[in-house]
Amino acid sequence: MSLEIEVFATLNGIPDEAINNKTVIVIDVLRATTTITVALAAGCLEVIPVLTPEEAIEMRERLGDERVLLGGERNALKIPGFDLGNSPLEYTTEIVAGKRLIITTTNGTRAIRRAAGGRLVFLGAMINAPAVAGLAATAATDITIICAGTRDRFSLEDFLTAGLLVDQLAGQGEFVLRDGALAARDYYYCHRADPAAALKASFHGRLLADLGMEADVEFCSRVGATDVVPVYGGGIIKKAS
Amino acid sequence: MSLEIEVFATLNGIPDEAINNKTVIVIDVLRATTTITVALAAGCLEVIPVLTPEEAIEMRERLGDERVLLGGERNALKIPGFDLGNSPLEYTTEIVAGKRLIITTTNGTRAIRRAAGGRLVFLGAMINAPAVAGLAATAATDITIICAGTRDRFSLEDFLTAGLLVDQLAGQGEFVLRDGALAARDYYYCHRADPAAALKASFHGRLLADLGMEADVEFCSRVGATDVVPVYGGGIIKKAS
Repeated sequence: MSLEIEVFATLNGIPDEAINNKTVIVIDVLRATTTITVALAAGCLEVIPVLTPEEAIEMRERLGDERVLLGGERNALKIPGFDLGNSPLEYTTEIVAGKRLIITTTNGTRAIRRAAGGRLVFLGAMINAPAVAGLAATAATDITIICAGTRDRFSLEDFLTAGLLVDQLAGQGEFVLRDGALAARDYYYCHRADPAAALKASFHGRLLADLGMEADVEFCSRVGATDVVPVYGGGIIKKAS
Repeated sequence: MSLEIEVFATLNGIPDEAINNKTVIVIDVLRATTTITVALAAGCLEVIPVLTPEEAIEMRERLGDERVLLGGERNALKIPGFDLGNSPLEYTTEIVAGKRLIITTTNGTRAIRRAAGGRLVFLGAMINAPAVAGLAATAATDITIICAGTRDRFSLEDFLTAGLLVDQLAGQGEFVLRDGALAARDYYYCHRADPAAALKASFHGRLLADLGMEADVEFCSRVGATDVVPVYGGGIIKKAS
């Protein structure tokens, strides 16, 4: 039987059977999954995704480890009392190498936690799409791609990245593309000449530009800039080996 | 303030504020919203959407009206004891003129009922897309387009039809397109030269072809074949005047 690829455009109502025992790729390209990828590439030891700022602060106290940093955003901005925001540009080797990161973001960390039943759970972004597709294609299971979306709404940038991943995956194996995967791939095809322009035109891209973070959007659109693949399991995100 | 258009790719998790007081267009192009449009065009007096076959049978008994017909499907096939299935080709003037139709389908009737809080609720399909867009554009409210999807999954054919509607609407007013609307429109652009081919390539299109109903898919892809716009209110669907 052929393996399938499916894409869910938002987090809501994803049936458990689409996650359990599947290879799941979670996308929140602006910016959580990009930023977590960058943090791990910069030498961060592990990333713990949590749902709320309160949970992040409690976990830091419970861990009692000087190496812990708190990162994340609400309304795209750094959370008061946190060490870092949600910009990938903040997560440099100087700041995160050898550290443990607790992160909470509006949509990304919810999406990651939703994927917890997957056999393998990867974090995907444009910067690591070829590497994620390479790993996922070897898993020999159906592949479910989850777009974090923006609260309960469709996010153009996540769907575009899902299409990029479908395109990369389809080049590496005989997959049956379900409707969500077909549509995401075609949508990516529309924009493959300039995915950065599509990211900038998205609601979230325009919001970030309005907040002076256009460089983040530019950074997040660099397809294949890194080979780092974050893998989530047991509540912790680490670099896939 | 500019009016917005948003598209939801499935029924799940649509926030109430996206429905209440909006103009809502519900799409289940293969085949419920196409078939209901055809029934009204053929002189059916009204259509009552219900969630289950049992509810349909109970309502027929309660109404005690000889003019009532039962229509709909489960697994794309006519329901035992019902008068009609879910093929638009069955709903001819000879059969439905002057009748009242109670209909239940797997996804379409759920989607219609979900839209009940809208200020205006229209049923959209390819066959009536220009007419629906024309009416919706004059409503002077935000427009929310709901794709019924297939159970909890993305349906390519509904998203394509949403894109067609966005394209038609954008030609008739100054709308702000939210991300779902932008992506649906671009997806439609990819396929506008041959939307019928895209419908046939969808999961549901292939299923119908396998069941010998390829003519239904062909029929459902005839953009602008009718000016009839079904409008839903008070639990009943009638032809917009």
